[in-house]
Amino acid sequence: MSSTPTPRQLHLNAFLRNIGQHEAAWRLPVTDLSGLTDIDHYINLALIAERGNLDAVFFADHPVFRAASVNRPWDALDPTTLQAALATATSRVGLVATASTTYNDPYNLARRFATLDWVSKGRAAWNVVTTAATEAAANFSFNFHPEHQDRYRRAEEFLEVALGLWDSWEPDAILGDKGSGTFLDPAKVHAINHEGEFFNVAGPLDVPRTPQGRPVIFQAGSSEPGKDLAARYADAIFTAQPTLAEGLDFYNDIKARVARAGRNPEQVLILPGLAPIVAATEKEALALKEDLEEAMITEYGLANLQRILGITIAPDQLDELVPLPEAPPAGQGLSHRSRYALIVKMVNDDRLTARQLLRRLSGGRGHRMIAGDPEQVADSIIEWFQAGAADGFNLIPPALPTSLEAFVDLVVPVLQERGVFRAEYEGNTLREHLGLPQPEVGEWWPAKTSQAS
Amino acid sequence: MSSTPTPRQLHLNAFLRNIGQHEAAWRLPVTDLSGLTDIDHYINLALIAERGNLDAVFFADHPVFRAASVNRPWDALDPTTLQAALATATSRVGLVATASTTYNDPYNLARRFATLDWVSKGRAAWNVVTTAATEAAANFSFNFHPEHQDRYRRAEEFLEVALGLWDSWEPDAILGDKGSGTFLDPAKVHAINHEGEFFNVAGPLDVPRTPQGRPVIFQAGSSEPGKDLAARYADAIFTAQPTLAEGLDFYNDIKARVARAGRNPEQVLILPGLAPIVAATEKEALALKEDLEEAMITEYGLANLQRILGITIAPDQLDELVPLPEAPPAGQGLSHRSRYALIVKMVNDDRLTARQLLRRLSGGRGHRMIAGDPEQVADSIIEWFQAGAADGFNLIPPALPTSLEAFVDLVVPVLQERGVFRAEYEGNTLREHLGLPQPEVGEWWPAKTSQAS
Repeated sequence: MSSTPTPRQLHLNAFLRNIGQHEAAWRLPVTDLSGLTDIDHYINLALIAERGNLDAVFFADHPVFRAASVNRPWDALDPTTLQAALATATSRVGLVATASTTYNDPYNLARRFATLDWVSKGRAAWNVVTTAATEAAANFSFNFHPEHQDRYRRAEEFLEVALGLWDSWEPDAILGDKGSGTFLDPAKVHAINHEGEFFNVAGPLDVPRTPQGRPVIFQAGSSEPGKDLAARYADAIFTAQPTLAEGLDFYNDIKARVARAGRNPEQVLILPGLAPIVAATEKEALALKEDLEEAMITEYGLANLQRILGITIAPDQLDELVPLPEAPPAGQGLSHRSRYALIVKMVNDDRLTARQLLRRLSGGRGHRMIAGDPEQVADSIIEWFQAGAADGFNLIPPALPTSLEAFVDLVVPVLQERGVFRAEYEGNTLREHLGLPQPEVGEWWPAKTSQAS
Repeated sequence: MSSTPTPRQLHLNAFLRNIGQHEAAWRLPVTDLSGLTDIDHYINLALIAERGNLDAVFFADHPVFRAASVNRPWDALDPTTLQAALATATSRVGLVATASTTYNDPYNLARRFATLDWVSKGRAAWNVVTTAATEAAANFSFNFHPEHQDRYRRAEEFLEVALGLWDSWEPDAILGDKGSGTFLDPAKVHAINHEGEFFNVAGPLDVPRTPQGRPVIFQAGSSEPGKDLAARYADAIFTAQPTLAEGLDFYNDIKARVARAGRNPEQVLILPGLAPIVAATEKEALALKEDLEEAMITEYGLANLQRILGITIAPDQLDELVPLPEAPPAGQGLSHRSRYALIVKMVNDDRLTARQLLRRLSGGRGHRMIAGDPEQVADSIIEWFQAGAADGFNLIPPALPTSLEAFVDLVVPVLQERGVFRAEYEGNTLREHLGLPQPEVGEWWPAKTSQAS
């Protein structure tokens, strides 16, 4: 009559970049370009993820159109609106939308994510970013893009307001007493009366407490203020870690910060990015990788290197070693620094030619890429998971839908056989998929907030 | 071989107020209160509207929670998010979401409506309001709710920015040339470089030109600045007109303003509100109306009269004639004035007791209510339509889903038999349902805008 305890389970999201994360995916003959703005393409992706029992599908946010898109597609739809459209086309998969605290208003954003949680019956998550693209400022009546530290101070206050608004309704506030004519109990609906540096927000929210208590909070951003913000507020963290050693350091650093912030480290999941190219055999997978890299546009890649590293490489210098830059380019914000440092380290450690570096960067924008057969990809995932460098992964399929389909059809069954990934969904909400508890009522009420600060 | 020209066709939207527009609808035994936040309730409503071939479903916007909700439900979900969720659950019905120009940012809102147009394959519309509720200011870090004229100046500039952003992409900008690696033609993507009193927005939008060219624009608001704004920018107008004579005046006034603004009056549709209570017989319809009015909460109604008219009526004065107020209550904004004037005129013309006035206001908040059998309701609709007081109606079902079902099942067939309403959808987009042309490319490009101003 003994029962075996369920081993620790992986969490897997699909981070879906329009028609593929790889800069050259759109040039493959198989890629349907209309997917860029076609809701049927995104529904198909979400249903593939759901068929694979993935925790969530995840969209980036780009509140500015960049000239770089001449040579490649971009994320052309608003992520919160897109996730709402997917909410009624799916039934179990979580829905993570990225949104900027710099270029949104907390009351409106809290209201939209609360509504997303209702229309998805408890599958909404917000990936909190402060927006690194300096060009965005010109679309939002800002005279300049705010400095990194100002963006993070605003992000913290924004989160305090949003969390307060989501907690402004007790679960049993609606009485609906038809006989007496009392629709709700006003004593169970709380103003927040927030007055801060960036925002004054009275509340309460106009949306009742949501199925998940509040949407799940993701955070992406690996600067010091980003890691501190994550430790205090995030339920899950999306990060770029190129090697196992770096992944371990990051994991231990974050879990320690979470504990110092007085929270349970098991309830903050760390999910590095991973761009998988999978095929039935390693040979086929490497051929797919080669196809993608062959389709790269050298000028586009070199212009990106110029922007990130500040070094100019001519097309006839592709097979020379990349020179180490002396300092980040002038005018580059702090949030690009972690990416700068990551690439400089890569160049230095591995002594790469420009061609090698461009290929390495083409698929994951700094995230780890792996090409192999299903066992190889599963082995790598399990290695990180069991070593304590990850609680799961944000998968970044290089080409869509093909790389996502291959992962779900080929790698998920291996992970299930190895006992580290669910055979079917056990809950209905994203919070349940992630193994996170329902938030406590009153956790963010003003009195408590001021005690905590 | 002659063909009969199709007679002019009615346009009918369903303006869906949570679980019913009537303040007492929630107290009926049949009303399911969970509908307030249940996506399945809204999907059901949208599918009923689609079964009736209605032009669109339409949601209001309330960016503030009001204490009045103790005695009745309110619109508890964000309308743009809700419409996005309905986009993939429906295939033909138009999706109109209200959003405020006072409490939104034009780049974000333009991006969300453009995305809604994509995910619905051309069924999105924005109902432009400036938000009358003064309490909203406290949720948006404003020190005070802006004055009416300031709100309308901002609304005009907001519309100019949004229209410019939607027009910033030419339809053939995406080349997708896999061979040469050219994804798009940057000469067909235009910055707007707007610099104004309220906003500085560089653009272009990050969303390509949408299926409808741009979302359809609705406008609601009957003040002088509201009517002028509608004449210049709206594709359709939602208005409260209690009598045929007033409806005719409003219709002729707006169509003349549209012509003076240099636009085609046939391409700006006027849709008065109409709250229909329909049953198989007039007797049953009047009994339904009586049920609703019997369920009204007198204290709630009297408090509303106090707020709108500034007069205090005791519960024991319900059968006395309502005294005429001398002036609108102090502190009441201009946008409440048209409602004040409408009610004062009603009291004066019809010499109403407080009980009669409360009953008349309970179902439509100033919109016309009609209770009758299917022929009676159809007759009234056709009378206004053929007299030239309306191009159709925004139907406001008093109880949901029952009043919407009754209209679709009982009145729509009569209108179809009379040849004034479509037997089935003839197009796929809302613009096609409304008989509006596709917008011209370049209509809102900066040079043209400055020529026009």
